[in-house]
Amino acid sequence: MTISVLRTVDAWWVVTPTGAARVDTEATTTAQLLADRPAVEAAASSEGTVAVETLSLLSPVTAPCRVVAQMTNFASHVEDAGMNPDTIPLTFFRKSSGSISGPNDDVIRPAHVRLLDYEVEIGLVLARDIPVGTTITADNLADYVAGLVVTNDISARDIQLPKTQFYEGKSYPTFTPVGPALVLLDGDELKRFTDLRLRLWVNGEPRQNMTVADMIYQPTETLQALTRFQRLDAGDLLLTGTPVGTALSAPPKPIAILSSLLPPAVKWKLFFAGQAKNSNYLQDGDLIEATVFTDDGTIDLGRQRTVVRYAR
Amino acid sequence: MTISVLRTVDAWWVVTPTGAARVDTEATTTAQLLADRPAVEAAASSEGTVAVETLSLLSPVTAPCRVVAQMTNFASHVEDAGMNPDTIPLTFFRKSSGSISGPNDDVIRPAHVRLLDYEVEIGLVLARDIPVGTTITADNLADYVAGLVVTNDISARDIQLPKTQFYEGKSYPTFTPVGPALVLLDGDELKRFTDLRLRLWVNGEPRQNMTVADMIYQPTETLQALTRFQRLDAGDLLLTGTPVGTALSAPPKPIAILSSLLPPAVKWKLFFAGQAKNSNYLQDGDLIEATVFTDDGTIDLGRQRTVVRYAR
Repeated sequence: MTISVLRTVDAWWVVTPTGAARVDTEATTTAQLLADRPAVEAAASSEGTVAVETLSLLSPVTAPCRVVAQMTNFASHVEDAGMNPDTIPLTFFRKSSGSISGPNDDVIRPAHVRLLDYEVEIGLVLARDIPVGTTITADNLADYVAGLVVTNDISARDIQLPKTQFYEGKSYPTFTPVGPALVLLDGDELKRFTDLRLRLWVNGEPRQNMTVADMIYQPTETLQALTRFQRLDAGDLLLTGTPVGTALSAPPKPIAILSSLLPPAVKWKLFFAGQAKNSNYLQDGDLIEATVFTDDGTIDLGRQRTVVRYAR
Repeated sequence: MTISVLRTVDAWWVVTPTGAARVDTEATTTAQLLADRPAVEAAASSEGTVAVETLSLLSPVTAPCRVVAQMTNFASHVEDAGMNPDTIPLTFFRKSSGSISGPNDDVIRPAHVRLLDYEVEIGLVLARDIPVGTTITADNLADYVAGLVVTNDISARDIQLPKTQFYEGKSYPTFTPVGPALVLLDGDELKRFTDLRLRLWVNGEPRQNMTVADMIYQPTETLQALTRFQRLDAGDLLLTGTPVGTALSAPPKPIAILSSLLPPAVKWKLFFAGQAKNSNYLQDGDLIEATVFTDDGTIDLGRQRTVVRYAR
């Protein structure tokens, strides 16, 4: 049985059939909470007394922590970006952990940003320290992955693309909504990872809907590649990529080839003029909803609901 | 007068005319040392009793910390990379702080890496916490920048370029040699930043030699842009870019345009075949030396000496 952990400003909670049960712990960080497993399990087997919907939820992943993200990692999204899934390398970038926000917090578009986009992703929350050189296999993966969370990798496309490095365009405050729940899994449950389905709606309109079977680099291979160069610690967050359906979509091939020959300033001017007509980018007041669950409901990471606000 | 701070495994030191003076402090991190300014100044005005060259130096910047780096930020390097300095955006990426190593430590080339390159850079060490939204101006810059260090932004070009995101190719352990000294500056000294000259040699052969006057985005503008999205803390490290002279050099324009039309796998194969003939990439046993100082010697960040070792 999975355990869904929630966080509020002054407590940690576990979802039970009768409501949320408070975890009796001194933990203030996700790493500390994961280390206090007996307290979590005691809460899970107790009787919840608080209605979950009355809780004002924060991200169950606390900052500071490392936020590492995978570039284009769903075949459908790679093709939509005009690339070939067979040749796409396993690639990481960083987001600031200051970008983490709660599952119902507003997503703030900075005043200088124009093209705000969404990317529903599964977040892996790490269970323990992983020094560089650690060997990760399918058999020991569950020793290193404590659980999963719904995340949204919010992206300012007009910052991200001209700069080529994704860091700034994905690191503004509120650009990583996380939660509602950190869902703790055992090894058998983690083996069902590929059955998870990611879905995202904007104002009720479906935009993304795809299972992990479409994922190119799965967690074992990904973590093995990551630990080749980057130490990780308990409570760190790995975002595993998004499927097709973002507002950003690549131009048709002939246009892409022609525009690659233009000077960068001209190329980006044309690109932004084209994208400005694309109404799928996030608008002031838009409601974004995102869910991740197996179609049989055995694993359910919950529903994230955030509203877009334009900063003036 | 600048203050040059050194670190060894069990102590902090300040360089005085008579040798290194031990700092009487409990600090174990760079942030703590910077907060214990009275102890640093007491050491600076005491009599040093230990010969500096007998100390086995560690990086004066301790990990973990944020390591943020600027992409192509010297006009000479931008042109050498086949781009136009007038259109290059102010762009950041992250390096893992696990890549930090000492000023005399070996630089280890991982077994799977072929094209190892160097980039001498000035590192800014931050003095205090800088929340998102902080206003940085030329007048208050010295409140936020505690001092400067010599750094080398070691890069695995065959990882960095095909992945497009620079994070992994610049984050392997020992890929950020830092030091020898953290040189603390006052506001007037910091105003001489543009007079600093960066130099790098491989086996005594000059490879890089350029002053900061060639830098596109200077620290005030850079930090102002960074604090638009990323919180920073005391002891964090900002690498400010490298001048022309790296082993990597862009192909001539017609070749670049032609190869941009090839499928990625073919393009990279051709690129690596060409680069394999370039003997400027770092070889097993190479001695890298790097210095940063003003031509009049008023500000001198010292000399870094590292040797390249190939992992088997």
